[in-house]
Amino acid sequence: SRSLNLAVIPGDGIGQEVVAEGLKVLSAVLPQDVKLETKEYDFGARRYHATGETLTDADLDALKRHDAILLGAIGDPSVPSGVLERGFLLKLRFAFDHHVNLRPSKLLPGVATPLAGQPEIDFVVVREGTEGPYTGNGGTIRKGTEHEVATEVSVNTAFGVERVVRDAFARAQARPRKKLTLVHKNNVLTFAGHLWTNVFHKVAAEYPEVTTDYIHVDAATIYLVTQPERFDVIVTDNLFGDIITDLAAAVSGGIGVAASGNINPSGAFPSMFEPVHGSAPDIAGQGKADPSATVLSVALLLRHLGHEAEAARIEDAVSADLAERGGLPARSTSEIGDALAVRVAG
Amino acid sequence: SRSLNLAVIPGDGIGQEVVAEGLKVLSAVLPQDVKLETKEYDFGARRYHATGETLTDADLDALKRHDAILLGAIGDPSVPSGVLERGFLLKLRFAFDHHVNLRPSKLLPGVATPLAGQPEIDFVVVREGTEGPYTGNGGTIRKGTEHEVATEVSVNTAFGVERVVRDAFARAQARPRKKLTLVHKNNVLTFAGHLWTNVFHKVAAEYPEVTTDYIHVDAATIYLVTQPERFDVIVTDNLFGDIITDLAAAVSGGIGVAASGNINPSGAFPSMFEPVHGSAPDIAGQGKADPSATVLSVALLLRHLGHEAEAARIEDAVSADLAERGGLPARSTSEIGDALAVRVAG
Ligand SMILES: CC(C)[C@H](C(=O)O)[C@@H](O)C(=O)O
Ligand SMILES: CC(C)[C@H](C(=O)O)[C@@H](O)C(=O)O
Repeated sequence: SRSLNLAVIPGDGIGQEVVAEGLKVLSAVLPQDVKLETKEYDFGARRYHATGETLTDADLDALKRHDAILLGAIGDPSVPSGVLERGFLLKLRFAFDHHVNLRPSKLLPGVATPLAGQPEIDFVVVREGTEGPYTGNGGTIRKGTEHEVATEVSVNTAFGVERVVRDAFARAQARPRKKLTLVHKNNVLTFAGHLWTNVFHKVAAEYPEVTTDYIHVDAATIYLVTQPERFDVIVTDNLFGDIITDLAAAVSGGIGVAASGNINPSGAFPSMFEPVHGSAPDIAGQGKADPSATVLSVALLLRHLGHEAEAARIEDAVSADLAERGGLPARSTSEIGDALAVRVAG
Repeated sequence: SRSLNLAVIPGDGIGQEVVAEGLKVLSAVLPQDVKLETKEYDFGARRYHATGETLTDADLDALKRHDAILLGAIGDPSVPSGVLERGFLLKLRFAFDHHVNLRPSKLLPGVATPLAGQPEIDFVVVREGTEGPYTGNGGTIRKGTEHEVATEVSVNTAFGVERVVRDAFARAQARPRKKLTLVHKNNVLTFAGHLWTNVFHKVAAEYPEVTTDYIHVDAATIYLVTQPERFDVIVTDNLFGDIITDLAAAVSGGIGVAASGNINPSGAFPSMFEPVHGSAPDIAGQGKADPSATVLSVALLLRHLGHEAEAARIEDAVSADLAERGGLPARSTSEIGDALAVRVAG
């Protein structure tokens, strides 16, 4: 009999609520013969305030033993900016070498978008997850004085760029439109830009069926609101990916439905799945959060572990639920989760 | 009698066409007693191919003697990416210490936006122009091998951050809503983020009437499409400013109407004014380019030199022209310029 041994990190704010619904839907969709084991970990603001810890070596050892990780959200205004981000979220992505940060954007029927004319949106961003300006490289001299200098170093390696570019080409090859767009700023960031562009062209030669394109990150934001249909798969660096995937989420239904995977394709470490949204402390505990983004992250998790049919069932359920929503009275977080659980089970 | 001694750089592609209209409107709006002198400079792809030069010390000496610079666009697919950007555009911004990159966004009545529901958009981005990841700091080792490492260094100084933050506070103070938003990514880029955030709070204490706000750059792209009305003045770093001003242009009428100023507020060097759009080689020479962005850049130029009444006349003319456009047959670049010249003279 098969098993799924899941680490669950509800985290802060609405993280608790949405993860509960994600697990509800996961239990409902899993075949009888798959044994689901979950272990909950208490990371985030509470733990930080109680112990000063964000993520210890022992924590990493424990997490390492799971098949995958489901995360709600980490972050609270009571913790200084950067402490939990660098000390937990980014530490985990780097420690487990989550170099493929996968963020699909699909505007589902009936879902509201801030864009006029309900454009066709169906693309996926492959954001590099372990390099770029996210490495924590840099420093400060003469801090707090009028002579302070602060630097941030974007580190890009052929190894790191090539593996994520390969992943993106393989994903593009597997999609009907077979189109891959590199987003960078190679006319200004010429050192990193040349590396990304050269590696992109080198790997492209191995994928003759994939149509390739290059767009500067600034222009990409224009196309995301004026011609989002031009994108199929996008590959980009860690920071540009961070920026454009929030915009992509906004135009394709909002961060209430934006899912993401922090993936280590080799399987050497468990991959982590989380909604793109944050902990939203302003609405926490009120049952107002939309669990769809977390539920869709569960679908990405299942697909990553080879449960394709179950992943598709979840996506269909969310799609059907969203299509119906206009006609439904406003529902709470758990009511939406219940409805999705019924759909995937049925 | 007063004079305006202008350096004119038509540049590449549609730069030629739109600058001609900008000058037409400038001549029409200037009071009789202001003597306009213009000198045209041939920079860009043609010069680069002919001589290998982009911007020499002698060029800088010549440009330095003008009151201001009007630029069309620089860039052509025949020149490798980065050569003209780093060798001309950025070289000039750095040489003349254009640390305030001013980019207003206003959705004028009757102008199409990709956003549903015609939101109210009227804000200005103050983008730092001489630091951040734009300094050209960084490098490459083992180029072209599987062990290549490429770095880009974002350099941020208290001096550089404070002067642009001060400029932004002064602009916010002068506007009716008096609101200033800092856009950064201080939860990840913690070294630069702390510097920007600390300087921002320090200067804020001197402007008690200005309401302040902080938004991460990724979230800012969401607000730009879902709640653009929340912005009044934004201050941000060079790269984030590059990205969000293209998005801002897209939502507020497109890059056909987006103007910008590369300003040295001290006057030690002439400031440069240019449309946000590029050289658009695909439509060059066909009279299809909208000269409005260049004409509005002329307005910023006039305001910078103290000709406030003339700047306002140009802005009113563009606004009236755009409001009428839906009812007009499609017009060429020079027809739009003619119409604007008539309006500002009238
Ligand atoms: C919270 C922050 C560290 C994170 C990031 O910048 O990657 C978030 O914005 C995201 O996109 O997952
Ligand atoms: C062409 C390029 C160097 C430039 C920039 O990145 O600043 C452009 O995108 C702009 O915004 O003026």
